[in-house]
Amino acid sequence: MPANRKLGIATVCLSGTLEDKLDAAAAAGFDGVEIFENDLIASALTPEAVRTRCADLGLAIDLYQPFRDFEAVPPDLLQANLRRAEQKFDVMERLGADMMLVCSTVHPESVDDDDLAAEHLRLLASRAADRGVRIAYEALAWGKHVSAYDHSWRIVRRADHPNLGLCLDSFHILSRGSDPAAIRVIPAEKLFFLQLADAPHLDMDVLQWSRHHRLFPGQGAFDLPRFLDLVLNSGYDGPLSLEVFNDIFRQADPRVAAVDALRSLLSLQESVERKGSAFAEDPTDGLPPPPPLEGFAFVEIGTGRDSEREVSGVLDVLGFTQTGLHRSKPVALWEQGSARVLVNSAAEDAAMTEVAAIAVESADPATSARRAERLLAPVLPREHRADEADLAAIAAPDGTSVFFCRTDVDESWLADFAPTANPPAADAGLTVVDHVALTQQTDDFDGAALFYRTVFGLHPEVPAEVAAPFGLVRSLSMTDAAQRVRIALSVSAVRRGDWAPGVRNPQHVAFATGDITRAAARLSERGLLLQLPGNYYDDLEARLDLPQDRLALIRSHSLLYDRDEHGEFLHCYTPVLGSRIFFEVVQRIGDYSGYGALNAPIRMAAHRRARLVPRQ
Amino acid sequence: MPANRKLGIATVCLSGTLEDKLDAAAAAGFDGVEIFENDLIASALTPEAVRTRCADLGLAIDLYQPFRDFEAVPPDLLQANLRRAEQKFDVMERLGADMMLVCSTVHPESVDDDDLAAEHLRLLASRAADRGVRIAYEALAWGKHVSAYDHSWRIVRRADHPNLGLCLDSFHILSRGSDPAAIRVIPAEKLFFLQLADAPHLDMDVLQWSRHHRLFPGQGAFDLPRFLDLVLNSGYDGPLSLEVFNDIFRQADPRVAAVDALRSLLSLQESVERKGSAFAEDPTDGLPPPPPLEGFAFVEIGTGRDSEREVSGVLDVLGFTQTGLHRSKPVALWEQGSARVLVNSAAEDAAMTEVAAIAVESADPATSARRAERLLAPVLPREHRADEADLAAIAAPDGTSVFFCRTDVDESWLADFAPTANPPAADAGLTVVDHVALTQQTDDFDGAALFYRTVFGLHPEVPAEVAAPFGLVRSLSMTDAAQRVRIALSVSAVRRGDWAPGVRNPQHVAFATGDITRAAARLSERGLLLQLPGNYYDDLEARLDLPQDRLALIRSHSLLYDRDEHGEFLHCYTPVLGSRIFFEVVQRIGDYSGYGALNAPIRMAAHRRARLVPRQ
Repeated sequence: MPANRKLGIATVCLSGTLEDKLDAAAAAGFDGVEIFENDLIASALTPEAVRTRCADLGLAIDLYQPFRDFEAVPPDLLQANLRRAEQKFDVMERLGADMMLVCSTVHPESVDDDDLAAEHLRLLASRAADRGVRIAYEALAWGKHVSAYDHSWRIVRRADHPNLGLCLDSFHILSRGSDPAAIRVIPAEKLFFLQLADAPHLDMDVLQWSRHHRLFPGQGAFDLPRFLDLVLNSGYDGPLSLEVFNDIFRQADPRVAAVDALRSLLSLQESVERKGSAFAEDPTDGLPPPPPLEGFAFVEIGTGRDSEREVSGVLDVLGFTQTGLHRSKPVALWEQGSARVLVNSAAEDAAMTEVAAIAVESADPATSARRAERLLAPVLPREHRADEADLAAIAAPDGTSVFFCRTDVDESWLADFAPTANPPAADAGLTVVDHVALTQQTDDFDGAALFYRTVFGLHPEVPAEVAAPFGLVRSLSMTDAAQRVRIALSVSAVRRGDWAPGVRNPQHVAFATGDITRAAARLSERGLLLQLPGNYYDDLEARLDLPQDRLALIRSHSLLYDRDEHGEFLHCYTPVLGSRIFFEVVQRIGDYSGYGALNAPIRMAAHRRARLVPRQ
Repeated sequence: MPANRKLGIATVCLSGTLEDKLDAAAAAGFDGVEIFENDLIASALTPEAVRTRCADLGLAIDLYQPFRDFEAVPPDLLQANLRRAEQKFDVMERLGADMMLVCSTVHPESVDDDDLAAEHLRLLASRAADRGVRIAYEALAWGKHVSAYDHSWRIVRRADHPNLGLCLDSFHILSRGSDPAAIRVIPAEKLFFLQLADAPHLDMDVLQWSRHHRLFPGQGAFDLPRFLDLVLNSGYDGPLSLEVFNDIFRQADPRVAAVDALRSLLSLQESVERKGSAFAEDPTDGLPPPPPLEGFAFVEIGTGRDSEREVSGVLDVLGFTQTGLHRSKPVALWEQGSARVLVNSAAEDAAMTEVAAIAVESADPATSARRAERLLAPVLPREHRADEADLAAIAAPDGTSVFFCRTDVDESWLADFAPTANPPAADAGLTVVDHVALTQQTDDFDGAALFYRTVFGLHPEVPAEVAAPFGLVRSLSMTDAAQRVRIALSVSAVRRGDWAPGVRNPQHVAFATGDITRAAARLSERGLLLQLPGNYYDDLEARLDLPQDRLALIRSHSLLYDRDEHGEFLHCYTPVLGSRIFFEVVQRIGDYSGYGALNAPIRMAAHRRARLVPRQ
């Protein structure tokens, strides 16, 4: 990536007043902004004051936008539009902005006449030239007459004025299913500006889709790497600028959203670089590729005085042995097979339980940490004694600590634990941590997915949406190529209603086994197996026609069941321990790689019932 | 309405476990429920226990639903489907349910063959007959081969089995734009079941539209009165049952949602009755038509020790005179023209301000109150002395008290106030309360609109949506035919982000005037006029080409401006007083009937700035 490639963001992407937005963009590290007109209009800062503020913050004003409904109109409207343009040029002069975005018209009195549109835009460009301004013409996907980028290019070409060029917006191009390959016929000097936005595939009105559901690059379904590669190979050398209209980002903390925005852009750049394209001469810009991840080293559960006993008790029943005690902290190490759980009992809230940290085995922990830092992940201060392992830790968006480490080396983090003399427990056949499931706050879901995808280098699996008892729940899991690290994120899609009883933002750790009945039987004996309703098994029987003995086994062990074309999935749960943690045991048969998402409502209703019954 | 017309609701409309849903439906007053299969499957209640519980609650089980993907499949699938059906008949027998909904298939292996579909459905119906069950066949709008109700009717007619009939669902019919008129060819005895749902017009995938965006009758855009009228005139005599999939209702308090649901259904019934159709012999069922409303009698503002001084001070500057003091409560009456404001200073929180009550002039207050009660509005306990007016008060969904009264009679509520000796203030030309604007909690918006529409008999005006500084804001105003009572509701569409500074759920009272500059000048003199940014006026000038003197007047008085094809609108604001109240002064010129919604973001940003500046 050339060092002079600038990264920008439109103020409309962020929540708040113009001042809030500029501060957030600068703090995240953007080089420039597009000033969205409505943000300026509502601001008490004069254009001159905005100019000064941007300069102080180190932000260029890359674009003033949007100017609407200009071209191909009757003469009286053209005169009014030119008058309006001159007044906006005045504002731009005061701002020190020299490029204006003009969207293709949606005016009811505009006509379908490319020659007239070209003539009017040429006139506008010549007025702009007098003011030192350049016009970037953009085809809105819902433009009345001009809705495709190749059409806007034909008009710009016809107008043939040096101050008139194109703005390409990935949303307007990719939402229509246009092939961006024809971008290659556009000369570099006519590519005035590039706006980047991703979006989910939605079958809906394109204007509503655009105004409410855009996403940062990588959060949606568009092939932005190919798009960007084409634009850069065409010689575009302006800023890469985000323009994302999104109902959630409109009200989310702009400081957080700006970090997500820049992280998404860095990751998009990387995906283009790694293809060895325009940027091959400087392929990393300090962003190292993600080292392979080789499984979970451990999961650390934060507990308080009471919940520590509860969690440790369940680990014991599940066949874990407490094999170590931290040399300087109130943390116990529990092991079974390659599954390791740390139980940290330092929390002040006696009933608190949460996933305090996840540690992943990295082929190169230092590089993993460097990558995280380059991708704007906050590096956590670590307190450790001189003789203890110095694990690089970063904070995930939900506050969970993330460690990159290697367990199979001398002086690994394991050396921080003094071995106990406990005899190995009769293990229950659990082998590894299968996945860690983290419920996110409603606004944080897309940002969390972005974090794990980019920082860990995981790829997202198929998203799921289920109608759960207390509202719609969306989930998305991410994993590495070898499926050794699986992070499952979920969220109350609308948000959980205040009326709803039960646990807020539950988290769970799932252990894999080759024989789930062993673990289920042990939990059941101690009253620690979540009980499922008979109606569930009646429905399983009606739906799936399983062999009677198999169904009986599933029913008698209170297991949940799923299958797909790749294999089968058996799973069972403990009740919620303390404030919000529970455990799951899973058995994957064949190549089933899901999480039994359709069973989630059954589990949630059962968890609610279990909370209503006094614990033993 | 025949006394035996039953009202029902599908459990899928409501949030919670099956137990929560049944309790809520019964508490609201429904006669029956459709049991949504997934609700039963997740429940620990056996079908027998559900049967008992429904009986105890006085709820009939009208329908078991849905049974999917049955007909027009290869023989092996047919056998599996019949086996599945028999197991569901077992469940229905245990439930005591005798009607099953079968949706038109979306199975990939199903074929487009009406004869085969009819043959299979006939076979299913004969199996059902053996079990005392009837099959209601419904065309899903996205059915693979059968997606229209007239098509489903041709198949049912061909199958010709007494235990096979139709389920008509207003969503599936009206979402496709089908003309429901052909319902009249369907014999009454084949209309087995009726599901009612409204929806907004959305240009999107119909399955997603159906699963996420349905609304209760009257909350959307469908012509449900005509639809229901057609179905009832065809002789349908089963329950009127709601089936509404909605992301908000899925997580909202089911007790509140069930009341909204029944209210919407009562109002829909009323709109059919009033047309003088099938129900003409018993046209009201105790629900009297809404008496005409004749303006606001008063608005009562609740204040505390400090905010009372602030509010009274602004009323004084606005030209109001304190004309009375309540004989038994700490409430002052302020008057100007026909505008009346009560300032109640009983709040414990010294800074609190809120719209405690709105009182509307009704042609028949007792009937208005009776209508409200019949529409499930909570009647508030009133404390009044024997010699004081007994105003009927009900609670709006947001807790605001609503009074129906007449001011122009002897012994009106005015008699509760002892006149002061205050000389009339130099009035500022304010004439009446133009509108009261109430911001709703995110989940309560549709319910509040339903309340004012049905209880007051107001009609909704054009909804607006604006991108405000701290998130998307939706608004909907309602008014009577003479536009003397205007209630403007607004809501943070996604919800206001926690990060956002400023006032939560602000409310305001707008006064009308024929000369806004008088009021603006008085406010300005005392530093009580909300100051607007120069950028706003620069943009007005660029956009609208107003005469220079007019623009100068608007700018110098810190007014906001809007115009449409009917007229012009000038408005100005005070800062926020106390916790969440402010005042607006409006001047309507010509027949402008809006609220200047596009100016809302400007006002919001200005209010935020005003809070940042220390008050005088």
